[in-house]
Amino acid sequence: MLLARVVGAAVATQKNEKLHGTKLLLVQPLDLEGRDRGGTVMAIDGVDAGVGDRVLLVQDGKAAMQTLGKGLAGVDAAVIGVVDAVDLPGGGA
Amino acid sequence: MLLARVVGAAVATQKNEKLHGTKLLLVQPLDLEGRDRGGTVMAIDGVDAGVGDRVLLVQDGKAAMQTLGKGLAGVDAAVIGVVDAVDLPGGGA
Amino acid sequence: MLLARVVGAAVATQKNEKLHGTKLLLVQPLDLEGRDRGGTVMAIDGVDAGVGDRVLLVQDGKAAMQTLGKGLAGVDAAVIGVVDAVDLPGGGA
Amino acid sequence: MLLARVVGAAVATQKNEKLHGTKLLLVQPLDLEGRDRGGTVMAIDGVDAGVGDRVLLVQDGKAAMQTLGKGLAGVDAAVIGVVDAVDLPGGGA
Amino acid sequence: MLLARVVGAAVATQKNEKLHGTKLLLVQPLDLEGRDRGGTVMAIDGVDAGVGDRVLLVQDGKAAMQTLGKGLAGVDAAVIGVVDAVDLPGGGA
Repeated sequence: MLLARVVGAAVATQKNEKLHGTKLLLVQPLDLEGRDRGGTVMAIDGVDAGVGDRVLLVQDGKAAMQTLGKGLAGVDAAVIGVVDAVDLPGGGA
Repeated sequence: MLLARVVGAAVATQKNEKLHGTKLLLVQPLDLEGRDRGGTVMAIDGVDAGVGDRVLLVQDGKAAMQTLGKGLAGVDAAVIGVVDAVDLPGGGA
Repeated sequence: MLLARVVGAAVATQKNEKLHGTKLLLVQPLDLEGRDRGGTVMAIDGVDAGVGDRVLLVQDGKAAMQTLGKGLAGVDAAVIGVVDAVDLPGGGA
Repeated sequence: MLLARVVGAAVATQKNEKLHGTKLLLVQPLDLEGRDRGGTVMAIDGVDAGVGDRVLLVQDGKAAMQTLGKGLAGVDAAVIGVVDAVDLPGGGA
Repeated sequence: MLLARVVGAAVATQKNEKLHGTKLLLVQPLDLEGRDRGGTVMAIDGVDAGVGDRVLLVQDGKAAMQTLGKGLAGVDAAVIGVVDAVDLPGGGA
């Protein structure tokens, strides 16, 4: 899992029927200093996150679908938590 | 999941029998500005997408197969939505 | 999934018993112009492909095993099709 | 699986309900000489590891969830062991 | 799957109980010329491989666990074969 920040959302009208009712977020993975780490990815929202939130991102099909409940369509990324604090005893953010 | 654009299609006559009847798309992952991001990949079409469409690409076996319905053959990538709009409150595409 | 070319085969006599009877191919992923893309990988043959064939490569455990039928041993890559033609309306190979 | 070192922990109050009661670790993958290898990732703690421990990190949804027991929520990384010794006959750490 | 060479082993005393009795190998992925390819990874031994052996490495949770039998703990890499010969008609190792 990676730390990431929600930077936007996407609308997909012609999508697989099993995805109806899900929210598609655009999230930017971050390093521990809060800087961008690689490119933005799209993820299903599992915790009602909003733009600007620092979140916990999973990037695995089985994990993302487990988050959303069985029977949902095939997705491979999901936001599963909003991160409130990071504790680094040896220094850092 | 990644934003991507459909750039072509492929024909595979000698393919695993479980894949008969599926459409093989060539898709180019994109960044938020619409520029190419890495190389082109092949994906099964799950939403009747066409060349030029901006789509939602999954790259995970379980997710791709879930999209296509149980019992289908082993694939690891699928187009699961056509993206109509991307909303980035902080700027961008 | 990636386009790839079969470049050889490997023999593994001391292998997990569930793999007996499977053919191990060495395949080179390709870009759309037919140039090498990253390093060679090993994949189980799901379509009786031969050296020189342009093929469709899956790199996911669940997908590769689904191709081979339930009950087979743990593999994470398989050749699932021989690609006859690639159609790129906007140009390319 | 990768060798990694636990460098911190994270707190996520607004998380998927199935994750309640799990501990979120920040871990830094290492090479054989103990140097950092790529960026830090977040992983569920499966062995009561502490900051400074050298651990065994899995990065796969099915594997991470298997570690935690069936029924838990979707995660894609877990710490599954504390590494006491590495034996490299040909030299190294 | 990748060609790799066994370079060592690791001992993890405080590991998930389901892993007891498994052997943890350190393996170095190789290219076709036998040179190192990326960093060393840790993998469960599925074929009683020894240091110096050239092996077949899977890096996928479902595949690695299938190799070890159902019911075992969450691992994402396994050695599933000892490679005796590589046949490259067009040249190479």
